[in-house]
Amino acid sequence: MVGIDPRLGLLPDVFQKEVNPADFQAVAQAFQDFSLAILDIVAPYAACVKPQLAFFEAVGPAGMHALGRVIRHARKLGLPVVLDGKRNDIGSTAKGYAAAYLGETSAWGGDALTVSPYLGDDSLQPFVDTAVEKDAGIFVLVKTSNPGGGMLQDLNADGRTLFQHVADWVEKTSANLAGSEKYGPVGAVVGATYPEQLAQLRQRMPHAWLLVPGYGAQGGTAEDVRSAFDADGLGAVVNSSRGILFAHSRKEYAGMPWEKAVEQAILDMKNQFAFAFG
Amino acid sequence: MVGIDPRLGLLPDVFQKEVNPADFQAVAQAFQDFSLAILDIVAPYAACVKPQLAFFEAVGPAGMHALGRVIRHARKLGLPVVLDGKRNDIGSTAKGYAAAYLGETSAWGGDALTVSPYLGDDSLQPFVDTAVEKDAGIFVLVKTSNPGGGMLQDLNADGRTLFQHVADWVEKTSANLAGSEKYGPVGAVVGATYPEQLAQLRQRMPHAWLLVPGYGAQGGTAEDVRSAFDADGLGAVVNSSRGILFAHSRKEYAGMPWEKAVEQAILDMKNQFAFAFG
Repeated sequence: MVGIDPRLGLLPDVFQKEVNPADFQAVAQAFQDFSLAILDIVAPYAACVKPQLAFFEAVGPAGMHALGRVIRHARKLGLPVVLDGKRNDIGSTAKGYAAAYLGETSAWGGDALTVSPYLGDDSLQPFVDTAVEKDAGIFVLVKTSNPGGGMLQDLNADGRTLFQHVADWVEKTSANLAGSEKYGPVGAVVGATYPEQLAQLRQRMPHAWLLVPGYGAQGGTAEDVRSAFDADGLGAVVNSSRGILFAHSRKEYAGMPWEKAVEQAILDMKNQFAFAFG
Repeated sequence: MVGIDPRLGLLPDVFQKEVNPADFQAVAQAFQDFSLAILDIVAPYAACVKPQLAFFEAVGPAGMHALGRVIRHARKLGLPVVLDGKRNDIGSTAKGYAAAYLGETSAWGGDALTVSPYLGDDSLQPFVDTAVEKDAGIFVLVKTSNPGGGMLQDLNADGRTLFQHVADWVEKTSANLAGSEKYGPVGAVVGATYPEQLAQLRQRMPHAWLLVPGYGAQGGTAEDVRSAFDADGLGAVVNSSRGILFAHSRKEYAGMPWEKAVEQAILDMKNQFAFAFG
């Protein structure tokens, strides 16, 4: 999975030169041009892409217009689109988010959306219902890759950590909807930076796709994420954002044209996986 | 606080007639026209407004353009704008959201943003830092107004509920930043539908503004929210969305022009508060 996380200061020179960072319209255009070019490069190799909504929102309405263009281009290339928005709310508002992002006919046209669980099961249900109706999916935050994630997620209540409470809801809900498939429409976000918990959570949620961030720039290795996959080598998608998007600034690709660096980075990631998975 | 939550089927006839619900551009225009009209009506009476991002996002990029117009108009009218997005993420992504929404010079120009705590303290810190830098504020979800909110929020860990863990972080952070002011820049969302916990949380977070949803259509009464305020009658904002926006469909305002129903609903809410607060 390639994360689409454009940030002006990190773009190849050709995209950021002559762009005034305070000109949101110009920055949004640079994000769009860069993201569309990235999609063309990674399309032959990537399983799916994950636009990070925050970076598009950061440049205002023009950024959201760019996001719409990026999603449409990914769909045109046949790349499933996981929208990383970590949204949630209650009742009709949760329905609003679900209607906004899930399914080809929605306003944004995502195949899946990341969702935050703090508001509880009745806040998650509208996303589940819409995902089922629109042939889409959701990934619920379970165990995140940041150091501070444990502040709440690792708290122990009734003999289970908070993230285990969320994981058990994910598994129950996804198993109920899986039918004859191995995996249901409700997946989980589990960071690569806690490999031991990743392995435990794979076991705990046999019917949930795992979305695994934290690979590469955040420190997770191919070996670390091996346990996210089932015995058939399926059931997980591993995200890399900076390591691929901004490969032109990695020293191992010094001197390469930026497009070539991106292509080489995704090939190297695939090779690392092939090696680690033996 | 007036919540700006446009939904096509609930708008006064003049805004929804001849609008095709599948035409996102037309729906976004209706949302914009309605929301700008609402702002003009409530400006003399409201302390602040709270656009609900989900409903604008639900109609795609055109909806986000409308949201931008709504925020600018509210600012022009002198109404502080609390953006209800319940955002969060980690690291540079959290910084992206904070930069997007907080402060007059940000891409969206909000005065405050609602933020979800599941990702922990290091995910909240960029919002706090940006709020301080941009003279803005955040409201962290503590105890939400929905029935399922307790699934995680009421779990007990180390002698405190999860929502108390979050509340204690809010209080500590806001107290540290309050300086000579009574209230700091970090507030809390606490629903009106749990009056007993609302009173306890007011005591537990003496330096945190409370944003209180759940009044009116969700069942909370003026008496229920009285305990959200401090001894001086300050320290809280109580939100009403549907009860004001869609007052034209409430039976007590039957037959009134929609603008008059909105104005009467906000006056009635103020009167209910004056009565309950003696």
